[in-house]
Amino acid sequence: MPALQAIAKERNLTPDDLIAAAKTYTPSGRHDDYIQFASGGHGGQVLVIGLPSMRLLKMIAVFTPEPWQGYGYGVGNDILAEGKVDGRDITWGDTHHPALSETGGDYDGQFLFINDKANARIAVIDLRDFETKQIVKNPLSLSDHGGSFVTPNTEWIIEGGQYGHPLGWKYAPIEEYNEKYRGMVTFWKFDRAKGRIDQSKSFAMELPPYWQDLFDAGKKVSEGWVFGNSINTELATGGIESGKAPFEAGVSQRDNDYMHVINLKKAAQIAAAGKTKQIEGFPVIELTTSIAEQLLYFIPEPKSPHGVDVTPGGEFIVISGKLDPHVSIYSFAKIQATIAAKKFTPDQYGVPVLDFDSCVEARVEVGLGPLHTQFDDLGYAYTSLFLEPAVARWTLGGDYGSKNPEPDWTLVGKINTHYNIGHLAVAEGDTVSPDGKYLVAMNKWAIDRFAPVGPLLPQNFQLIDIDRPGDTMQLLYDMPIGVGEPHYAQIIKADKLKPWSVYPEIGWDPHTQSVDPKAPVSGTERIERNGNKVDVYMTAVRSHFNPEHVNAKEGDTVTFHITNIERAEDATHGFALPAYNVNLSLEPGEYAHFEVKDVKAGTYPFYCSEFCSALHLEMMGYLLVEPR
Amino acid sequence: MPALQAIAKERNLTPDDLIAAAKTYTPSGRHDDYIQFASGGHGGQVLVIGLPSMRLLKMIAVFTPEPWQGYGYGVGNDILAEGKVDGRDITWGDTHHPALSETGGDYDGQFLFINDKANARIAVIDLRDFETKQIVKNPLSLSDHGGSFVTPNTEWIIEGGQYGHPLGWKYAPIEEYNEKYRGMVTFWKFDRAKGRIDQSKSFAMELPPYWQDLFDAGKKVSEGWVFGNSINTELATGGIESGKAPFEAGVSQRDNDYMHVINLKKAAQIAAAGKTKQIEGFPVIELTTSIAEQLLYFIPEPKSPHGVDVTPGGEFIVISGKLDPHVSIYSFAKIQATIAAKKFTPDQYGVPVLDFDSCVEARVEVGLGPLHTQFDDLGYAYTSLFLEPAVARWTLGGDYGSKNPEPDWTLVGKINTHYNIGHLAVAEGDTVSPDGKYLVAMNKWAIDRFAPVGPLLPQNFQLIDIDRPGDTMQLLYDMPIGVGEPHYAQIIKADKLKPWSVYPEIGWDPHTQSVDPKAPVSGTERIERNGNKVDVYMTAVRSHFNPEHVNAKEGDTVTFHITNIERAEDATHGFALPAYNVNLSLEPGEYAHFEVKDVKAGTYPFYCSEFCSALHLEMMGYLLVEPR
Repeated sequence: MPALQAIAKERNLTPDDLIAAAKTYTPSGRHDDYIQFASGGHGGQVLVIGLPSMRLLKMIAVFTPEPWQGYGYGVGNDILAEGKVDGRDITWGDTHHPALSETGGDYDGQFLFINDKANARIAVIDLRDFETKQIVKNPLSLSDHGGSFVTPNTEWIIEGGQYGHPLGWKYAPIEEYNEKYRGMVTFWKFDRAKGRIDQSKSFAMELPPYWQDLFDAGKKVSEGWVFGNSINTELATGGIESGKAPFEAGVSQRDNDYMHVINLKKAAQIAAAGKTKQIEGFPVIELTTSIAEQLLYFIPEPKSPHGVDVTPGGEFIVISGKLDPHVSIYSFAKIQATIAAKKFTPDQYGVPVLDFDSCVEARVEVGLGPLHTQFDDLGYAYTSLFLEPAVARWTLGGDYGSKNPEPDWTLVGKINTHYNIGHLAVAEGDTVSPDGKYLVAMNKWAIDRFAPVGPLLPQNFQLIDIDRPGDTMQLLYDMPIGVGEPHYAQIIKADKLKPWSVYPEIGWDPHTQSVDPKAPVSGTERIERNGNKVDVYMTAVRSHFNPEHVNAKEGDTVTFHITNIERAEDATHGFALPAYNVNLSLEPGEYAHFEVKDVKAGTYPFYCSEFCSALHLEMMGYLLVEPR
Repeated sequence: MPALQAIAKERNLTPDDLIAAAKTYTPSGRHDDYIQFASGGHGGQVLVIGLPSMRLLKMIAVFTPEPWQGYGYGVGNDILAEGKVDGRDITWGDTHHPALSETGGDYDGQFLFINDKANARIAVIDLRDFETKQIVKNPLSLSDHGGSFVTPNTEWIIEGGQYGHPLGWKYAPIEEYNEKYRGMVTFWKFDRAKGRIDQSKSFAMELPPYWQDLFDAGKKVSEGWVFGNSINTELATGGIESGKAPFEAGVSQRDNDYMHVINLKKAAQIAAAGKTKQIEGFPVIELTTSIAEQLLYFIPEPKSPHGVDVTPGGEFIVISGKLDPHVSIYSFAKIQATIAAKKFTPDQYGVPVLDFDSCVEARVEVGLGPLHTQFDDLGYAYTSLFLEPAVARWTLGGDYGSKNPEPDWTLVGKINTHYNIGHLAVAEGDTVSPDGKYLVAMNKWAIDRFAPVGPLLPQNFQLIDIDRPGDTMQLLYDMPIGVGEPHYAQIIKADKLKPWSVYPEIGWDPHTQSVDPKAPVSGTERIERNGNKVDVYMTAVRSHFNPEHVNAKEGDTVTFHITNIERAEDATHGFALPAYNVNLSLEPGEYAHFEVKDVKAGTYPFYCSEFCSALHLEMMGYLLVEPR
């Protein structure tokens, strides 16, 4: 291939570069094999990325209004309003951990859940149309790093807190931290038929004011149990301004923090039996109840851990202490035996702390700053090493040991990342049957890796080939993330997703996922006036609105009801109304309605904001507001 | 390269695919050669994309709040507030045409301008930090498709209107369209030293209520002149609901619309001389003045044109009539001669309409639905063909004729696009010295090209190799745009951009681009109370805030002043405050301040929302609001 070699020479590409190019290049019209759902961090959105091409296919609007999708600009305003805090609109989120719905511990491609760490909220996204359907505000907390995670059949969505405060975030002096501040974990009941969290069947557990961090659900042998890690068992309260140790020092003093081991199956029974206290109108299993009913145990975990990751078969839980060069692997069977043998002593809140040595299966020295672990189909685990920065591949033991040639519980190889890796994601790496093949390193700093774009730099996702056993990991692709700071991702086989290409019927309301009988269709377009209320029933089709003239009087409330009556895939229409902060995105079949209050006298040209046809610019009309 | 061939076989890649892969693959750490600034359409942002990798390096927040950048969440709120319409916050935009600042007709990499078609606003972005610095609301219009375009030394930023309405968008019945509705073009004076539009030195020209569409500035031989195209010289007013022809039909009846030819140099003198009328407090050259002073001419242009594009030397203006298979090439010299010979007749508003045949240099049949044209370094022009859809390459005449082997004014080749191409962009294709090499087709529909993501589909940017003469254009890469519907882009050589990697000094206010003496630095952290006003002077550094405890009382107004005192590149800190809709992005050296009014009693954990270090999770503190 002399032409290829000439290009390689001109562009200074090595043979390895050409191989990486061939492994990732996805020709025009070819679909990607895997889809990665990544949180958008404090962008408040979810990113949908194709693998191996590493192309951004869509940003799903979740906690932050997004006008391309019309979200918060006439569409979905009611969903965003569900997320108010203390009655205040919160128009952003710090999305952290996306969780795909599961059936039998495998991603089923139906729903996606994502948390907002900054305000303790959970959103539900329907993967039929890739749109947010619900936002739930946690009534107890303002901080929820430990969500979202699902149980193997998506019965429960797990939301763990992070920074301690009195439940319901009432005021208490920081000096009363130990007594009045608390941690928590909430279990939201998911109603799959309705596609909504059922708040009436959900409950929380009071926890000590350690900072709960991440959670993971047990699976297979450990199904029904939930595991969390924590930091700040020091109960540090900071105060650098008064000469005290800042949080970063105070939180990092002890050699061990506590893994939280929760019997969710039993806790759900206790909650259903009403053995709860209502706090902010929400049922909470008090700490004393959890202890008495044997719902909660702790196990020491070295040292300021971040990850808590359950192996595909549910036999082991991997903890990465970010200030300890080892990962610690706990055996679920040993934990159960330790509980049965009552080998525990209470912590200062009375929670039984299980004997470390009785629970630990193995420890593997992986390197500096281990954070988070995922699994593949070859019996390997992968741990991100923030401080090196690198990804470590190491072998599992137990039934996984026979899947690769190396000895159990052994470091096999490393690959550098650029730079400062946080989480990592393996294809289907959170399921009972990981695919392996690809790993994405989610790097926090980019520094000099890309053409400069000012002081705020993108993050860097690096696609890594993990398809062959041994010390063979290969870097394939660097993807800058210039739209947020993703925290975590899940990767699903693309063919598991079966989204709609157009809405099922004309007049479809995506919020209810059903036809709205009020939706105008071809022939029912009209304007109705009742006193100072004007209802406009409008249709959109290439390339006109009907009606094109909307007459109103100053001070009227004008409600637009608009249906896109197209049936062709991609025949989306927008509806932009100047001066009133309105922009809809109406996908084929979609119906939307919104209200404009107290219109001001003037001439307002509205138009289609989605380039729909050759006569797209001509698709417009006027809102004509006559002075009174 | 047997390994490469094995991968090609496994992934079903053709030799052409491998070549395209090698031409676009950009190894880890390698920087892109070109940077494309694309509008984000009704996402309201600007996208920064590297070429040839087609990676999204950054989304610049412009008209729409963006919490990853803190924009609208405590940073830049005052800039967004400049864009109010009728006193109402407008938190989105329909960004259409980005324009890089120019020196001598070449991109200089200093500033970027972008319009909001939906509300007639222009934003100024400083390319030292890639942040929006100013939003200007046009006082005359609610609709500005014809912006932004700059004159060759960025003296003026051009903003043309689109849909007619009374200037100032006052009410007038649609029946009085011809008399009371108007078009307009505004010339905003740019103060390069201040990096701001100087509204006091800007002016507009009243135009007939045709729909002005796109504009372009003359250059070199035509410097000082401005050219615009228009549609709806029919003066159609729609009314499908009353059985009248809808806009799409009414606007498309005539064989010709009018190219607008404006003597900007002379118009600026007329405006400076005060021969204007104040409308909404803004100086407007009335149509009668423009006619009397010979500032404005029309030329017939077939048929519902979209593009109006001036050749690199300024000799020709290319018009694409989207309902005509030709491009029409007008000679600036012939236009001047026609004006001198007074070969014109007035239109219904008295504007002189120049004789078509006297102004036209050539017509080239390019195909169906021509929209927009750009130029390269080989004497070729490229026109997007929406209906085919395809890109046509054709030869220019005049001095360009000797740069390629084909005859002048001839179609050379076409390449299909997928699908429905709108604008296209050639590397430096808008300048006096285009680079050629790459062309990006900006396609409106994707349909089946990517893995499905629900009814709302991405657009598709296609990178096309135009490096060799003749019928040789090659498709290199498909880039889905899942964050908006880009309308137009400009592509600059990457090494022309010289952004800051960190802010120049600690305490930098990016809005004023200078140090704020109020900015706290290491050692001046403090909390000051005055009545019910609390001022918090805080610093952020890996990995703590100082102070960590902020005590306040219910109802207080708390103003945070925060400086990131880091000097290391990429050491950005966030500041997230739950329940108050606050999130800052503080790049190294940056100072920001924001106010929280009427705080509610409670315990609010604030934290760093940018993953800054291994102890990032520990970088937090408390706002403690005591009840009164």
